Amino acid sequence: MDKKQDSSRELFNEVKEMMDANKLIDLREMLEEYHTMDIYDILLELGNNDQVKLFEILPLDTAADILEECEADFFIKIVSQIDKEHAKRVFDEMSLGDLSDILREMDDDEREKILDIVSKADELELRELLAYVDETSGSTMKKGYITVNKNLNVSQAIRHIRSESVEADSIYYIYVVDNEQKLVGVLSLRDLFISKDSSTMEDIMVENVKSVKDNEDREEAVKMVSKYNLVAIPVVDEEGVLKGIITVDDILDVMEEEASEDMYKFAGSSEHERDVAENENSTLFEQVISCVRGRLGWLVVTLLLSFVTAYIFMKFQGLMSTKMYELIFFVPMILTIGGNVATQSSAVTVINLIDNDKKVDFQTIAKELVSATINGLVLVAIASIVLLLLGGVKMSILIIAVSILINVLLGAAFGTLMPIVINKLEADPSVVTSPVITVIMDVIGVLVYFLIISAFIGL
Amino acid sequence: MDKKQDSSRELFNEVKEMMDANKLIDLREMLEEYHTMDIYDILLELGNNDQVKLFEILPLDTAADILEECEADFFIKIVSQIDKEHAKRVFDEMSLGDLSDILREMDDDEREKILDIVSKADELELRELLAYVDETSGSTMKKGYITVNKNLNVSQAIRHIRSESVEADSIYYIYVVDNEQKLVGVLSLRDLFISKDSSTMEDIMVENVKSVKDNEDREEAVKMVSKYNLVAIPVVDEEGVLKGIITVDDILDVMEEEASEDMYKFAGSSEHERDVAENENSTLFEQVISCVRGRLGWLVVTLLLSFVTAYIFMKFQGLMSTKMYELIFFVPMILTIGGNVATQSSAVTVINLIDNDKKVDFQTIAKELVSATINGLVLVAIASIVLLLLGGVKMSILIIAVSILINVLLGAAFGTLMPIVINKLEADPSVVTSPVITVIMDVIGVLVYFLIISAFIGL
Repeated sequence: MDKKQDSSRELFNEVKEMMDANKLIDLREMLEEYHTMDIYDILLELGNNDQVKLFEILPLDTAADILEECEADFFIKIVSQIDKEHAKRVFDEMSLGDLSDILREMDDDEREKILDIVSKADELELRELLAYVDETSGSTMKKGYITVNKNLNVSQAIRHIRSESVEADSIYYIYVVDNEQKLVGVLSLRDLFISKDSSTMEDIMVENVKSVKDNEDREEAVKMVSKYNLVAIPVVDEEGVLKGIITVDDILDVMEEEASEDMYKFAGSSEHERDVAENENSTLFEQVISCVRGRLGWLVVTLLLSFVTAYIFMKFQGLMSTKMYELIFFVPMILTIGGNVATQSSAVTVINLIDNDKKVDFQTIAKELVSATINGLVLVAIASIVLLLLGGVKMSILIIAVSILINVLLGAAFGTLMPIVINKLEADPSVVTSPVITVIMDVIGVLVYFLIISAFIGL
Repeated sequence: MDKKQDSSRELFNEVKEMMDANKLIDLREMLEEYHTMDIYDILLELGNNDQVKLFEILPLDTAADILEECEADFFIKIVSQIDKEHAKRVFDEMSLGDLSDILREMDDDEREKILDIVSKADELELRELLAYVDETSGSTMKKGYITVNKNLNVSQAIRHIRSESVEADSIYYIYVVDNEQKLVGVLSLRDLFISKDSSTMEDIMVENVKSVKDNEDREEAVKMVSKYNLVAIPVVDEEGVLKGIITVDDILDVMEEEASEDMYKFAGSSEHERDVAENENSTLFEQVISCVRGRLGWLVVTLLLSFVTAYIFMKFQGLMSTKMYELIFFVPMILTIGGNVATQSSAVTVINLIDNDKKVDFQTIAKELVSATINGLVLVAIASIVLLLLGGVKMSILIIAVSILINVLLGAAFGTLMPIVINKLEADPSVVTSPVITVIMDVIGVLVYFLIISAFIGL
């Protein structure tokens, strides 16, 4: 790790020196050996003037690659400072899918400025892509793919592909279409490589081609690519006409986003806070705003429901004037154990519902309840031993033991069932967050504890 | 979704009918059009006898693909029932990387049984792969890749690749090695496609090839593939000799695992519980055991630290006999708010530390504390208004307000700093789990609350 950081530091210093000495031609040549992302890293570190100067000497395809991968802020900054004609030439080299992803992140004014610069044909395609709802397959797909007509033979197809492949994002798969551009098959470059020249595409293609619908949630594309080990998946419209492809690098990006999203949401924050946190250019102010926006709501819910807990507590205040008043000291214990069990069960259930699309079946519920019973009994045993050693009264120990066991069971039941019920109601189970679970278990826990106490000693 | 389920149900019924009618040749032919994973889904649904019968009639390469993708339990079950010679032939078709992944999940006896069946050469390669520590790049890599010597020209290279490509897992990249098998460059099939026949590999290759070390954590491979949009990344040893490749489908698998792992761990469960939960063949008993094993430890920690909370509470019991005794009812509120703020801050910090390898810098800490101050002040305002409306005493309101604010700030500070400190100590920040955070904030919270009460009214 350190060695890698050293070498990127060295590269940066070298670039900086060459820029200061104005050796731009040499610099351009040297950078040819480096990966786009390494050059992007250097650009991010450079001062404003150097940034534009370096970007302008990059070969068009490298510049295009960088704009495909960069953040919207960087994109706007660079494009607003370079020559319009140069920008147009760079846009021409860009994948329209990636360009539309960046346009999606901009406000309307900025977006229209860019759409004014690109060619008329590209503008139409971009507007088509931008029309898709966010997070659908259509909004995620790219336009650069290779199709061959099903009637071509291998030599014709190879000729066709060689003429087109420079434009295509991915030639890992070749999609076979009929005369109406409907997707009818797929083959890999490898299949083409090892087939006889005279075979037609229809002969050698795989007919049962996996695809996703353009207006479907992009999660479906993630699942298909992952399950079937694909490098790209075609996107078709309702009629089966090929509209674009989603490549595995897009899938990786989506997975990265969604993975941390689940955890942000569960802990009681938001997607939006994650997006801002991961944007390297976001200011402290933007971060604070996103953080407050994401979290404050859950904390207000916590506060308000805590008044209910306080109210229940107050209703049973008679306990304080009995000789069992020491049971009061165990209120936080009872509540925290219940809350923690519910957090565990709900996290596991939410993950199963969201990520794995697994049927949360009877066995899952059974597993949670049986495990909770075992965990509860162990906790009761430990608690009883500690309390005995501390010289606790038998009645108190019994009350605490029963309360722990019941709260553990209720926590597991509530943590498991709440996401399942919400899912059944077709709502997003990720509204089940740790803060909400915890505070609801406070309300349930304090009520159960005092009811048990009342049952034993009467209040 | 439903349409997809219907069509897979139809396919299953069709297969079942053909098996019952013993039309095995027709069945084999029909299945040729289907994806391995679809056939695997059917196998999983079939009864034991039909399972083996169907597996045996599958073409060797399909059978091999299925064993590459299946769970260890299924693998053991099938292999123990089919003919040894047939098993050997299927193993010959399998990727050694995938085979070793499955062997890794078996116990020693089962593993040795399989190693007895494979060819001597494969056994040696498998033992080499199995020797790598779990979750390193070496343990994740595959053996099927294509190398060309740097001195070959394009026509020689194409001839070489056509003769080898049937064996290779991935011909998306061609790795260029020197005479000592050290990795010196990379090129894509596409580069080869568009280059002159007489160019040598050294002329057309990209020299600055991204690779990972075989004994490094596989997370590094995930980061590289994701950052540089690769389809595969080569794995080299300390000398730079090419040892294997990790393909993007392995990366997707790793990402899927790690994503839900983070959430399981944070909620106070374990990787192991996740593995068992995702294994479709695990029994209720195995699931319960893994669940208890994963969660009980955190609950015991919760219980034991709760005794500290109870002890502190007891020490300040004098409060009950003052006229401010109503402050007792707000103990759960103060503790839950502190715990929830700490959970939010720690989840965000842990995610940043683990997943993004982001420097958690001064700005992160500043963001957490500034946001916590804002959130705290809003909560204090709401709480004060509600308490005023309920006719609370001014002194009580002041004490509760100050306690909420201080607990929110402490929660944010503790939730942010604890993972950072643990990370600095080179321990895994994922030991910071929601249950532990919550119960530690109970201890801190109850102490702070009673100290503030004492400061105001003297206990």
